[in-house]
Amino acid sequence: MIADYRDGYSLEQPFYRSPDVFERDMERLLTRRWLLVDHESRIPDKGDYFLFNIGNESIIIIRESDDKVNALFNVCRHRGSRVCLEQQGNKRLLTCPYHAWTYNLDGELRPPQLMPPDFDRSRFNLHKCHVTVYHGLIFVCLSPGAPPDFAEQYAPFDEMMDFHGFGDAKIALKRDYPNRCNWKLVVENFLECYHCAPSHPEYCSVHPPDQLLALGAGPGSGPEEAMEKYQPILDEWTEKTLAMGHPVPEFERDEHSLDLAQLSRVPINDRNFASETRDGKPGCKKLMGKFRECDHGETAFVFNPTNYILAFNDFALMVRFTPRDAINTDVQFSWLVHKDAEEGVDYDTDNLIWVWDVTTKQDKQITENNNAGIMSSRYRPGPYSMHEARVAAFIRWYLNAIRLPA
Amino acid sequence: MIADYRDGYSLEQPFYRSPDVFERDMERLLTRRWLLVDHESRIPDKGDYFLFNIGNESIIIIRESDDKVNALFNVCRHRGSRVCLEQQGNKRLLTCPYHAWTYNLDGELRPPQLMPPDFDRSRFNLHKCHVTVYHGLIFVCLSPGAPPDFAEQYAPFDEMMDFHGFGDAKIALKRDYPNRCNWKLVVENFLECYHCAPSHPEYCSVHPPDQLLALGAGPGSGPEEAMEKYQPILDEWTEKTLAMGHPVPEFERDEHSLDLAQLSRVPINDRNFASETRDGKPGCKKLMGKFRECDHGETAFVFNPTNYILAFNDFALMVRFTPRDAINTDVQFSWLVHKDAEEGVDYDTDNLIWVWDVTTKQDKQITENNNAGIMSSRYRPGPYSMHEARVAAFIRWYLNAIRLPA
Amino acid sequence: MIADYRDGYSLEQPFYRSPDVFERDMERLLTRRWLLVDHESRIPDKGDYFLFNIGNESIIIIRESDDKVNALFNVCRHRGSRVCLEQQGNKRLLTCPYHAWTYNLDGELRPPQLMPPDFDRSRFNLHKCHVTVYHGLIFVCLSPGAPPDFAEQYAPFDEMMDFHGFGDAKIALKRDYPNRCNWKLVVENFLECYHCAPSHPEYCSVHPPDQLLALGAGPGSGPEEAMEKYQPILDEWTEKTLAMGHPVPEFERDEHSLDLAQLSRVPINDRNFASETRDGKPGCKKLMGKFRECDHGETAFVFNPTNYILAFNDFALMVRFTPRDAINTDVQFSWLVHKDAEEGVDYDTDNLIWVWDVTTKQDKQITENNNAGIMSSRYRPGPYSMHEARVAAFIRWYLNAIRLPA
Repeated sequence: MIADYRDGYSLEQPFYRSPDVFERDMERLLTRRWLLVDHESRIPDKGDYFLFNIGNESIIIIRESDDKVNALFNVCRHRGSRVCLEQQGNKRLLTCPYHAWTYNLDGELRPPQLMPPDFDRSRFNLHKCHVTVYHGLIFVCLSPGAPPDFAEQYAPFDEMMDFHGFGDAKIALKRDYPNRCNWKLVVENFLECYHCAPSHPEYCSVHPPDQLLALGAGPGSGPEEAMEKYQPILDEWTEKTLAMGHPVPEFERDEHSLDLAQLSRVPINDRNFASETRDGKPGCKKLMGKFRECDHGETAFVFNPTNYILAFNDFALMVRFTPRDAINTDVQFSWLVHKDAEEGVDYDTDNLIWVWDVTTKQDKQITENNNAGIMSSRYRPGPYSMHEARVAAFIRWYLNAIRLPA
Repeated sequence: MIADYRDGYSLEQPFYRSPDVFERDMERLLTRRWLLVDHESRIPDKGDYFLFNIGNESIIIIRESDDKVNALFNVCRHRGSRVCLEQQGNKRLLTCPYHAWTYNLDGELRPPQLMPPDFDRSRFNLHKCHVTVYHGLIFVCLSPGAPPDFAEQYAPFDEMMDFHGFGDAKIALKRDYPNRCNWKLVVENFLECYHCAPSHPEYCSVHPPDQLLALGAGPGSGPEEAMEKYQPILDEWTEKTLAMGHPVPEFERDEHSLDLAQLSRVPINDRNFASETRDGKPGCKKLMGKFRECDHGETAFVFNPTNYILAFNDFALMVRFTPRDAINTDVQFSWLVHKDAEEGVDYDTDNLIWVWDVTTKQDKQITENNNAGIMSSRYRPGPYSMHEARVAAFIRWYLNAIRLPA
Repeated sequence: MIADYRDGYSLEQPFYRSPDVFERDMERLLTRRWLLVDHESRIPDKGDYFLFNIGNESIIIIRESDDKVNALFNVCRHRGSRVCLEQQGNKRLLTCPYHAWTYNLDGELRPPQLMPPDFDRSRFNLHKCHVTVYHGLIFVCLSPGAPPDFAEQYAPFDEMMDFHGFGDAKIALKRDYPNRCNWKLVVENFLECYHCAPSHPEYCSVHPPDQLLALGAGPGSGPEEAMEKYQPILDEWTEKTLAMGHPVPEFERDEHSLDLAQLSRVPINDRNFASETRDGKPGCKKLMGKFRECDHGETAFVFNPTNYILAFNDFALMVRFTPRDAINTDVQFSWLVHKDAEEGVDYDTDNLIWVWDVTTKQDKQITENNNAGIMSSRYRPGPYSMHEARVAAFIRWYLNAIRLPA
């Protein structure tokens, strides 16, 4: 099926519904990459934890100390019970609720009662999951083997991550949008703005048509001539922004990369919007990171096709697409603000989430209708438009990833 | 399994539960036959449409003009989304809600925005589904190839269809009864009246035992001697009815036919009931078609084992069994009256549906209990009685159909 | 997979989730053993019946006479419908609701109407299920072939069964606790008390730690030295109890047996509790069977890993674990008292069920968390503690059973 793929077209039906394909997606791709799971402000104190659930896996993300966050498979080494049951909480020790096998916060098994004399405790620590914290963002990699080199992979993001000050952020709000469809349909939807005009009036009220056409889903997502036409506006804004001392990075990896990462900054629109809010006024009075004055810009961090941050001067939103099974995907959005910002004083959550909450609900309908149609015997892969160039690139990247030997 | 079938017995368990058998049922049988989907009065105006959903397929049945009804697969040729989301409505054009690819009412793709220069629009019309309108009834055939010859197939029905005036009918009421069982159990149930006495007191209060025994599920459904015994009553009624100038057709295809079609007319009972109502009085004051005086008859049109019309002088009911998956079947009943009849004046829907609404609810329980029992390891195909001759014929017809090469 | 099993460890993941393994469990094990289904006081009068549902099977347990209880597969031999639809009731005859095929209470088909002349009625009786009543307890065996020899198998239980007087008992209350997990996880949970301290405060408030460690899940369930330490208490109680003329049997079959049966008597605790109630006072004023004075003992009848009775002097509880599919198990507890005891006068059901109702709800959470964790790719069979010796024995017994040729 991979060999038969026709470039520039959507995938054949089984890629979107088959449990076998999903197993391969998990095994060859999703469990071998660094995945953004949350902002570390979710677990400020020692013993604070939350669960990250993907496919049949449950990972405990737990703070061991100010400097150390651990990620551990939520599977007791005794009889396999879940160790942590609540989605989040605080634990002094990780004690399995079944037989009270107890692990330190790094997963080390403490001596259990009543084991046979030949029991070798050192062989029964909780399985570790690779984890790294990067400017306040927690990434995990579920690979049983060595993970990709994180620092090397995301070095191009360093300066801009630092400028946005994500290390000094906090989560203002988090919302879940379960989508009844394959995870690739969620990604395809997010990687193109061809559907914005028909589907997202609120989003389009903030971003002008020319810009959505040129780079609505990031640089390279639209037709070349639209980009050329839009270039003067971009150039003018870039010049002003650089003059303010603000970075305007451009970075993009191709479909042979591990991550399909991309980094870009553009103006929100041509109407001097300070932020992506209904009226263009700032969403939060406290600017984030090194921003001291407003540059009207929007930064898109594409960590990989399932993890994004869209960042303005005053707030950011973190996007996480997490497959549950072949036809269910958990979409989670988290809105980040400066750690010292106060709700009701510096920001109003309704205002922060206005664009993306409604847009994501619309996208849920879209992806589920897309899924329903694809189930038909008459579904055939269709051709991507010039406004879906990044979807086409994603599909090539995906096929490259799952084509690799085990 | 087909080769091992023992004639005169029900099928082995896998025929009633296996997803593989269901896929074959769909592919070899259900998508290659003409299926009655509804009466065209459901979509009187240009752009009126409804969806017909069978298995994983969704078909848009839409009126293009007074003379033309189209049937189109509800799958956008771009990325596969459902084009129409509501079960029914009105559309000036068929615009996909995802990226606004827009089709004319005949499925022709209008020029989409932003497609590459080599895009050949003519290759991306909506997939057509074969459709024909016959005396107001809409039939579709989902076959990817040529459909069976409709006119040839149903020519024997022409005169009686015309006499009942279905072309001048309207839908008085429509009810859905989802059955949690395989579609063949629904058909088997409908094709015999061996179960009427134990299960359907209301139905039996209208139709006398001798008649139910002789031809409760149509001519040929009961034992021969019961038919012989009932013949004088039938002959007397036939003579009177013909004298009134009303047709009394008889027609039947065997298990080697495409459709197992049957057409027959008999008296409702021996008590001069005008219609199949609780008290035998007409269900609708306006008679249908060419009926001017009451002949106390009931016409049964068997289009195929999943589609029927039972027609009286004053109203008719249209029966549609539509498989959803291996163990779910949608049963839909629609009651038809003369297009000029007014509810509350000429007819009362409670009165029209009295017999079949309660009977169909009873049948739902029956088929679901049948399904539950068949799941047992101890289920073995059982022998049909002499009152189930048409069920036996259906099973032979079914096996003939799915035995054919792809 | 069976060959690769490492002794003393839990099973590999597929044993707990695979439908194929479940089919084999049913075929090689569960349908070939005697299963305790209920107490016969549930069906006191002729024609009283209840259904026992296991996997896809439904068995009618019906009283034919004072002396005779029959078990029949709930599958009509005509077209396979369920014959009895309600979970319990009374029937003079077994009449299928579909076509009224009627069977005597022993499953013999009475002459059905309208069958062909060559119909041989004797070939279409309801399939019988092996059944036996033992001291008021109804056991069935679903095997298509000969069942194991019941009398031989349970002869060692005779004296104690008689002493408890189960033949003169009645059901005071019955509760169902559906567990979303494989049946083997329910059994494993029940066969060890390693989890009692962390999970069951109410249960531990009645039974002292030393005893739970020594024989919390029966003799042989705990470490040897705990048993040795506890032996004096046991010996003292045994001496006193024997002096009262009460039996103190000990009996145990190993993992090569058909049933892994066990029989034992121990004191409830070292605080002279009369019964397993919150305050240790009797749960029922009328003692059962041959008990005339209180011996503070508790008898555990292990009929097989899915059926148990825990009996005190005044009441007993009957435990039934019934698999529904690979990941669902019905847990049913029934509390038995003397047949002449009156609710509100002699016993209070809240008092009777206090320990085990709350404990079984806790166990439901435990087994479902166990199931969730086992679904992870990182789950590996883990080592049993010295407090889980009977779980280890159960696993060996299970593997022996399903290893046998078909």
